[in-house]
Amino acid sequence: MEKDVEGGIRIVIEGVKPEIDGGSFPIKRIVGDELAVEADIFADGHDVLSAALMYRKEGDPNWIEVPMEFLANDRWRGSFKVTEMGRYRYTFAAWVDRFRTWRQNLTKKVEANQDISVDLLEGAQFIDEASQRAKRRDAGTMREWAESLRSTKVHPSTKTRLGLSKKMATLMAKYSHRRFATTYSKEPVVVVDREKARFSTWYEVFPRSCASEPGRHGTFKDCEARLPYVSEMGFDVLYFPPIHPIGRTNRKGKNNTPIAEPDDPGTPWAIGSEEGGHKAVHPQLGTLEDFRRLIAKARDYGIEVALDLAFQCSPDHPYVKEHPEWFEWRPDGTVQYAENPPKKYQDIYPVEFEAEQWQALWKELKSVVLFWVEQGVRIFRVDNPHTKPFSFWEWLIGDVKKDYPDIIFLSEAFTRPKIMYRLAKLGFTQSYTYFTWRNVKWELTQYFTELTQTDVQEFFRPNLWPNTPDILNDYLRDGGRPAFMTRLVLAGTLGANYGIYGPAFELCENRRKDKESEEYLNSEKYELKQWDIESPNSLRDFITQVNLIRRENPALQSDLSLRFHSVDNEQLICYSKHTEDLSNVILVVVNLDYRYKQSGWVDLSLEELGLDHGQPYKVHDLLADATYRWQGSRNYVELDPQKIPAHIFRIHQGITKSRN
Amino acid sequence: MEKDVEGGIRIVIEGVKPEIDGGSFPIKRIVGDELAVEADIFADGHDVLSAALMYRKEGDPNWIEVPMEFLANDRWRGSFKVTEMGRYRYTFAAWVDRFRTWRQNLTKKVEANQDISVDLLEGAQFIDEASQRAKRRDAGTMREWAESLRSTKVHPSTKTRLGLSKKMATLMAKYSHRRFATTYSKEPVVVVDREKARFSTWYEVFPRSCASEPGRHGTFKDCEARLPYVSEMGFDVLYFPPIHPIGRTNRKGKNNTPIAEPDDPGTPWAIGSEEGGHKAVHPQLGTLEDFRRLIAKARDYGIEVALDLAFQCSPDHPYVKEHPEWFEWRPDGTVQYAENPPKKYQDIYPVEFEAEQWQALWKELKSVVLFWVEQGVRIFRVDNPHTKPFSFWEWLIGDVKKDYPDIIFLSEAFTRPKIMYRLAKLGFTQSYTYFTWRNVKWELTQYFTELTQTDVQEFFRPNLWPNTPDILNDYLRDGGRPAFMTRLVLAGTLGANYGIYGPAFELCENRRKDKESEEYLNSEKYELKQWDIESPNSLRDFITQVNLIRRENPALQSDLSLRFHSVDNEQLICYSKHTEDLSNVILVVVNLDYRYKQSGWVDLSLEELGLDHGQPYKVHDLLADATYRWQGSRNYVELDPQKIPAHIFRIHQGITKSRN
Repeated sequence: MEKDVEGGIRIVIEGVKPEIDGGSFPIKRIVGDELAVEADIFADGHDVLSAALMYRKEGDPNWIEVPMEFLANDRWRGSFKVTEMGRYRYTFAAWVDRFRTWRQNLTKKVEANQDISVDLLEGAQFIDEASQRAKRRDAGTMREWAESLRSTKVHPSTKTRLGLSKKMATLMAKYSHRRFATTYSKEPVVVVDREKARFSTWYEVFPRSCASEPGRHGTFKDCEARLPYVSEMGFDVLYFPPIHPIGRTNRKGKNNTPIAEPDDPGTPWAIGSEEGGHKAVHPQLGTLEDFRRLIAKARDYGIEVALDLAFQCSPDHPYVKEHPEWFEWRPDGTVQYAENPPKKYQDIYPVEFEAEQWQALWKELKSVVLFWVEQGVRIFRVDNPHTKPFSFWEWLIGDVKKDYPDIIFLSEAFTRPKIMYRLAKLGFTQSYTYFTWRNVKWELTQYFTELTQTDVQEFFRPNLWPNTPDILNDYLRDGGRPAFMTRLVLAGTLGANYGIYGPAFELCENRRKDKESEEYLNSEKYELKQWDIESPNSLRDFITQVNLIRRENPALQSDLSLRFHSVDNEQLICYSKHTEDLSNVILVVVNLDYRYKQSGWVDLSLEELGLDHGQPYKVHDLLADATYRWQGSRNYVELDPQKIPAHIFRIHQGITKSRN
Repeated sequence: MEKDVEGGIRIVIEGVKPEIDGGSFPIKRIVGDELAVEADIFADGHDVLSAALMYRKEGDPNWIEVPMEFLANDRWRGSFKVTEMGRYRYTFAAWVDRFRTWRQNLTKKVEANQDISVDLLEGAQFIDEASQRAKRRDAGTMREWAESLRSTKVHPSTKTRLGLSKKMATLMAKYSHRRFATTYSKEPVVVVDREKARFSTWYEVFPRSCASEPGRHGTFKDCEARLPYVSEMGFDVLYFPPIHPIGRTNRKGKNNTPIAEPDDPGTPWAIGSEEGGHKAVHPQLGTLEDFRRLIAKARDYGIEVALDLAFQCSPDHPYVKEHPEWFEWRPDGTVQYAENPPKKYQDIYPVEFEAEQWQALWKELKSVVLFWVEQGVRIFRVDNPHTKPFSFWEWLIGDVKKDYPDIIFLSEAFTRPKIMYRLAKLGFTQSYTYFTWRNVKWELTQYFTELTQTDVQEFFRPNLWPNTPDILNDYLRDGGRPAFMTRLVLAGTLGANYGIYGPAFELCENRRKDKESEEYLNSEKYELKQWDIESPNSLRDFITQVNLIRRENPALQSDLSLRFHSVDNEQLICYSKHTEDLSNVILVVVNLDYRYKQSGWVDLSLEELGLDHGQPYKVHDLLADATYRWQGSRNYVELDPQKIPAHIFRIHQGITKSRN
């Protein structure tokens, strides 16, 4: 007989949902969420089972137990509320409930008028046995019951009533015999984040381009002055590219030319110079104190400052001299610069994660994160995490979040799908997506269905960016202003988390460096910019409006309820989001054609929206502030890209019925 | 830093297919099968990976390695042939291949006309390093190559040619540097069975009803005389209900009456009497020697005898006295008989698997199996395995098959789907199915798609029974002879494994005991029967024909290629099976309506059948021996239940094109 076999263990617990890769990775939730868990639980034979969902905050030695409910087809369900940030674990126990089995059989025998005299004696045995585990008062009651079931003086019908009584069932459940209980072999983790992990509105800006007068290098003080502008538009995360000293060796010139002019500022991602590395501030931006002041000011505006974590070095980074062992040296005595042949990035040295001294390297990189955490930063956008080992991130994020569970890490991995998902599984709080390149209806529908209606939604929180300093896509280049409006509405309503790279976005900057790449012409990655943010052509007011709609409508603050509805026009896309109680239902229709007016009939899944087939309902377009009276599933829409390319309807409360 | 983290390990191996429940259970294959395995294999960054599939027979300490091939989207594939019965394990290794990365980058740089002088020096380093692992002769070659790459006398273009040469790639692959190789954390098992596990044709018969004259109790010698009959019909497994002594206490009478007449034989499943228990033969059937002789005779006819494993006891079973601790005792001093209230089986005591002495019980039950194995039995049909613990079966089957990998266990679990699948996963070779009650087109299509086109096919081998001694379904009762023909064709062509309970089946016995249950009237479970097997109304010839078609057409000897094709008539079902090389393609059309002629247009998936749209092809009906010339996907069929309710077409070789 195998050592790990226990003859009495008869119950199987499997098919747990949610559970990622057999419990290898956590699922994600937000403080206050109710977490419902299901499992297949079954045994041989006809015995009645009882099952419990168990959970605890990590570090807490005691499990809290919640009874599970039987659904159908051997499926059980239980739920609990996660009330704090951090990591919880959950697992299950199930046992053959001999008393409940006895009670069920007794019921059937009574119904069939069978002799139950021996059954009553058996019941007495079960009660006696359970009474030994009971508190004194309960034990007394139970012993009396057992007595009654055995007594020849009590009428059989009284015994039966007692045996089938609810009070006995309740007390026996309390002291249920768990000999041979099956405990689930795994303890999956749920990482609980703060609300902002689910709902955030990002604005990316180059601090050095925030100066109020042309030609001057912007500073943190200039950024302070920009805060009202950002806040009024409705953004709550202000993300800066790296703010550290920039290397001089092999510095890139304007438009990524290999040789810089003396006054070219270089790219902020070529981190490190004589003035310091990842823990220093670029002198032209100001001081560390200035930065801390900016963080505090931003907080007053309801804005969090997010920093860029780009673990790479310019040739002038102090690490190169102090820790040559963290870099890859070539036979000619040079350090291997970053390359993806035939592309070369001579101004950047990747760190060598296969170094023998990898432990010291990991610790140093963690100390970089903690340094900025100490300055008050709680959100990091991580540059190219897919070019560093998975195990490094799993360790780093896990370790940092032990002490700071409120930290948000956004993965900037534009790479193959399995790698993007892996990074999300191992701990990244939010992730960049393919949204940036998904412009047509079938692509958007397929991709966002995968993100929100499969297991992916358990671990991958999309953050949608229509543009970035690296990516000006064909759609924006070709479509201009109407295209920018369309993409903004899509990003802000398909994604509870979204961001734009501004002011390029609101100013509809759509000039490319060349046809082949998606680089901006005169990209501010390589030069200072002066943006005319007061331009009358700015989308500032439209963005303000969309962000206000997001704040006022909780349906748009989560992605899980996203459902697509059909429209008989390939240029029109229609989808809805709603709160769980259907008190807030939003229906979005967007014209994907930036050239022509498009019209069509939407065909709504009314059930999904909590609407009756027979009843008319009102839809209020929050963008145009117009109200329409609709009825049934088929309704007409018409959108002109030269005016507003989208409807964001709120389906009118008054005529909406509750779904529960 | 966590102890189990190794900084250099960068590769992820996941998404393995086939793999059941994260490797918790084996997949199943047949000797000679090629097993193809796929996995997602990826790392951070842009490095080139190499991967190997590793396999070994269990007990063999050495892994055999097969290189894996990259498919697309981080998916890799490898395969190996299982050549022996028993258990194999497979797993994976993958590593960053620095030489292949170097070679790929070199190619790109050469194409882009970039300077490669330092790259060539790096190549020399890789070769030197690998040469230290190389056999002497290879090492010499490699050192010469390294020399050339470094030499200032060799022309750069010669060096490039050498660096990109195939011979260098081959030799470097042989001595690839596997520092930081990722080894897959699991070693899934494949259980390899003999051919009969996949393709078998069962005939169930009560030996006691095989006597040649009325009223006499049949014997093993009578069974010998029945062998030609069974063999001529084309059956290769002859399955007997329990052959052990039958208890007298609480013996059931005819038609399951609670009190038996003195000459009632009792049910064979009430095992055990003064004459012995599970290791004894019922005296009226003959002796153990007679049984062994029968097995040997059967073998001459190409028939294997299968026994029933019913682990339960009559009140007279020797175990009850010798091992009272293996039974559940009630407060009134009686043993708990089998019941599923309000149903009672007073002639049967279940064994108590929750007994404290479970280990002794398990061992004894295993000795029962081994006893019959020693008599020459290699196939067991297991009665109600779902009423005994899963862990017991997993242990029993695993342990027995260690020494006897040729043994086949058929699970007779007619219960909830998850339990049936669990039993298959834990080791049962074949399983009874819901086929017995699936009579209409959508049910059959849905169920057999689930069985053959999902992961279920990796562990669950269906064995299809249109009837059993316990089940005469409505369809057979109401439909009579045409219904029996229809169900036979369905069973024999949907299932490579199928069986009938005869002679009830071939004689179209369709009288029920009552309306409510599926019990036969005058069931031979409770009495001796005399079947008129020579009846002119017997389906004997039809069965012979169907079984011959099965033997002659390898397409019907496996279930994995099963595909349904649409027909514009709900009463007609159409499906195909084919060999992997398409050398044998069978198309079946069955009329599910036993009353009326039905006709319609089938709409074939030609691609599936290896047929051209433009080309006509011949279909040869193997039942009616008629040939039709068909073209394209839509073709007309017409089936009359009063004649033959099915077509079994072989699609004519000559015009079939190969699929590879």
